[in-house]
Amino acid sequence: MKLGRLNHIGVATPSIADSIAFYRDVMGATKIHTPFDLEEQGVKVCFVDTPGADGAMNGTQIELIEPLSEASPIHGFLAKNPLGGQHHVCFEVPDIEEARAWFESLNKRILGPTRIGAHGTPIFFLHPKDMMGVLTEIMETPREGSDWSN
Amino acid sequence: MKLGRLNHIGVATPSIADSIAFYRDVMGATKIHTPFDLEEQGVKVCFVDTPGADGAMNGTQIELIEPLSEASPIHGFLAKNPLGGQHHVCFEVPDIEEARAWFESLNKRILGPTRIGAHGTPIFFLHPKDMMGVLTEIMETPREGSDWSN
Repeated sequence: MKLGRLNHIGVATPSIADSIAFYRDVMGATKIHTPFDLEEQGVKVCFVDTPGADGAMNGTQIELIEPLSEASPIHGFLAKNPLGGQHHVCFEVPDIEEARAWFESLNKRILGPTRIGAHGTPIFFLHPKDMMGVLTEIMETPREGSDWSN
Repeated sequence: MKLGRLNHIGVATPSIADSIAFYRDVMGATKIHTPFDLEEQGVKVCFVDTPGADGAMNGTQIELIEPLSEASPIHGFLAKNPLGGQHHVCFEVPDIEEARAWFESLNKRILGPTRIGAHGTPIFFLHPKDMMGVLTEIMETPREGSDWSN
């Protein structure tokens, strides 16, 4: 496996509305996507774009995550961190099955089945205890020309 | 203020040597810089490069941070998170004094004086309680042609 692009960092928040105001009015974000529900993961998400090295808005995104209910895994995170905070990091891979086989071969605990993530491509999560304390999402790179933005 | 590039994410670790092995052998990092001590901040740091949108190794970096002593602020973090974990995020700004004045005008608590950071440019940290739970570093963008890499 070769280290892929850091697609996004996941930031938990008790209120996406408040976080949008924060990134817009305090941090000066110029491109904030429309929030949407990811029902099967029990969360509402919203992507904030950041500039890349060339100045285009293609840098690592910030994924704001708000729980949809008390059953959401984010609910527990917010119980410990009421203001929100850094929740996970997400790296891209060219082939999700190959990546899954790689981490399985290293006996890294994978959290549940491979499923479709917020960018519309397959993803899985790795247990932070096997990843030096960092909850890590692996996602297949969106294909050229696909448009999940809004 | 305009949201700048996500220069790096800071990841605390009890052992930079172990983290280097992890990023190299598990995550497949191909460019890991030489670790160095940042004495005045009480930490040893090591940068891991990731690819950007164009495939060049100019994406958001991972800054591995290990405490140099028990007096280090990272020591307390590791007491709570023995395996390590996500510690802070760092955004670039074109002018550090302008950015400091901006956050001061919003009554955001700034942690200590502006000082020289790991990339050799001025930085400061903002209190996570004023930043929706995220410890946030603001750094002046390294000037074109400056070379802090090793």
